[in-house]
Amino acid sequence: MSGFKAHPTSQVDSDQVGAGTVIWQHVVVLRGAVVGANCNLNCNTFVEGGARVGDRVTLKCGVYVWDGVTLEDDVFVGPNATFTNDLRPRSQRHRPVIPTLVSQGASIGAGASILCGTTIGRHAMVGMGAVVTKDVPAHALVRGVPASIVGWVDEAGESLQQVGDDFRSSDGRVFCLGVRGLSLKT
Amino acid sequence: MSGFKAHPTSQVDSDQVGAGTVIWQHVVVLRGAVVGANCNLNCNTFVEGGARVGDRVTLKCGVYVWDGVTLEDDVFVGPNATFTNDLRPRSQRHRPVIPTLVSQGASIGAGASILCGTTIGRHAMVGMGAVVTKDVPAHALVRGVPASIVGWVDEAGESLQQVGDDFRSSDGRVFCLGVRGLSLKT
Amino acid sequence: MSGFKAHPTSQVDSDQVGAGTVIWQHVVVLRGAVVGANCNLNCNTFVEGGARVGDRVTLKCGVYVWDGVTLEDDVFVGPNATFTNDLRPRSQRHRPVIPTLVSQGASIGAGASILCGTTIGRHAMVGMGAVVTKDVPAHALVRGVPASIVGWVDEAGESLQQVGDDFRSSDGRVFCLGVRGLSLKT
Repeated sequence: MSGFKAHPTSQVDSDQVGAGTVIWQHVVVLRGAVVGANCNLNCNTFVEGGARVGDRVTLKCGVYVWDGVTLEDDVFVGPNATFTNDLRPRSQRHRPVIPTLVSQGASIGAGASILCGTTIGRHAMVGMGAVVTKDVPAHALVRGVPASIVGWVDEAGESLQQVGDDFRSSDGRVFCLGVRGLSLKT
Repeated sequence: MSGFKAHPTSQVDSDQVGAGTVIWQHVVVLRGAVVGANCNLNCNTFVEGGARVGDRVTLKCGVYVWDGVTLEDDVFVGPNATFTNDLRPRSQRHRPVIPTLVSQGASIGAGASILCGTTIGRHAMVGMGAVVTKDVPAHALVRGVPASIVGWVDEAGESLQQVGDDFRSSDGRVFCLGVRGLSLKT
Repeated sequence: MSGFKAHPTSQVDSDQVGAGTVIWQHVVVLRGAVVGANCNLNCNTFVEGGARVGDRVTLKCGVYVWDGVTLEDDVFVGPNATFTNDLRPRSQRHRPVIPTLVSQGASIGAGASILCGTTIGRHAMVGMGAVVTKDVPAHALVRGVPASIVGWVDEAGESLQQVGDDFRSSDGRVFCLGVRGLSLKT
């Protein structure tokens, strides 16, 4: 693959980095990592072999993406937000990786921590400093330690208003709540 | 400007870095960033264009200062403390920056997160791991998630004792509470 | 000392790094730091002069070990976990370092913050995102802000079951509670 740009202080061992992706200073992308097209990997980030990063993903500084973590397209990960892949880590005891899925269009706030084994739903938003210990439904806004739902947001991050059983965006679209969170009413 | 020292592994694109400032390993200071005199930027820090850092500021490792963030003189930012400049970030949706002000002499504890749009008052102290979601008055000590006031401190970080409506330092100075926090009684 | 491996982008000024230790990209180990044998220092980590790191220790990315911090053998420190050595830091006011001890076999979860002056007991486990403000007993599992005991774990991180006054591991060993936490019943 080709067509990506990497700063000379970075190390890209993966041959699966998409076109248009920009990799800034002091970044490491290991062999076996998959990074999509048109991503922005800010300085001091790391993508391990086995990690999968979709297209148009933003990693702010201080984000480390481990084996087992999948970030779908259009995901935003704020500075110093932290992923995990072992529920009970001990030094030099390697156990099977526990996967984490951040679904398309979701955002992880600055300094948030994400327990492995969880799924962050599509277009969900994890607040700054939140500690996510269970699944986050699609379009949910979660905050706190442990994180809990405090609202609902659309693709742009704007608040949705609940009207009866429906949730309405400011541009008039209507969402309804299903088992995996909100989705557009059809 | 001149008279600052930068480690050869760092990248300083700004021409506004003050004399006596020391910049350690793997630091990036972008064009348009302003950094004052006699600062200490520890390894793995970053200052973006549009960020303003005063004189005698300390950035410990893992601190990233974004466009819109102003750190006045004598500010201390602990390791992995995290700033933001967008309340509802989405990947590749760029919105106007929301400013954050850390006033003269304030300290941000290790691992704390600061919501954009807030002002940290003069000589305030944000505790380790706190999540600041609203303004912090001058000389206040805040802790927790979300952060709330648990005490008051002087310029050196020593506790102030409340006596009636006044707050007294161990060296006998008297502070009084106004709309923006404590100030020396005159 | 010799027999350790350091990536060429790292800087190792200490002459006290043990054999078999591997130091990855963009790491700084200052003069006066002690790092034991067979450790793994991931990228973007830092060990200050005065810090002591035992044998077989793992530092994940974004971990900065300050003067005054001691990590005994077999300690695991998760990504972006943060140590401190000053209770009331102010920029350019240097005070005596307050020590922190992480005892043999303990784990610090991702994004956790550890107040200086505390001792983390042997084989204790600090959960992801926890803020530790007081001593953690041996074998305790702590979570939350501030961190509190939510369970007990063995050397491998597996839960111990309380049976009367005893705590039992899945392989039939029995622990009892003393002033410093759990220890094997003899």
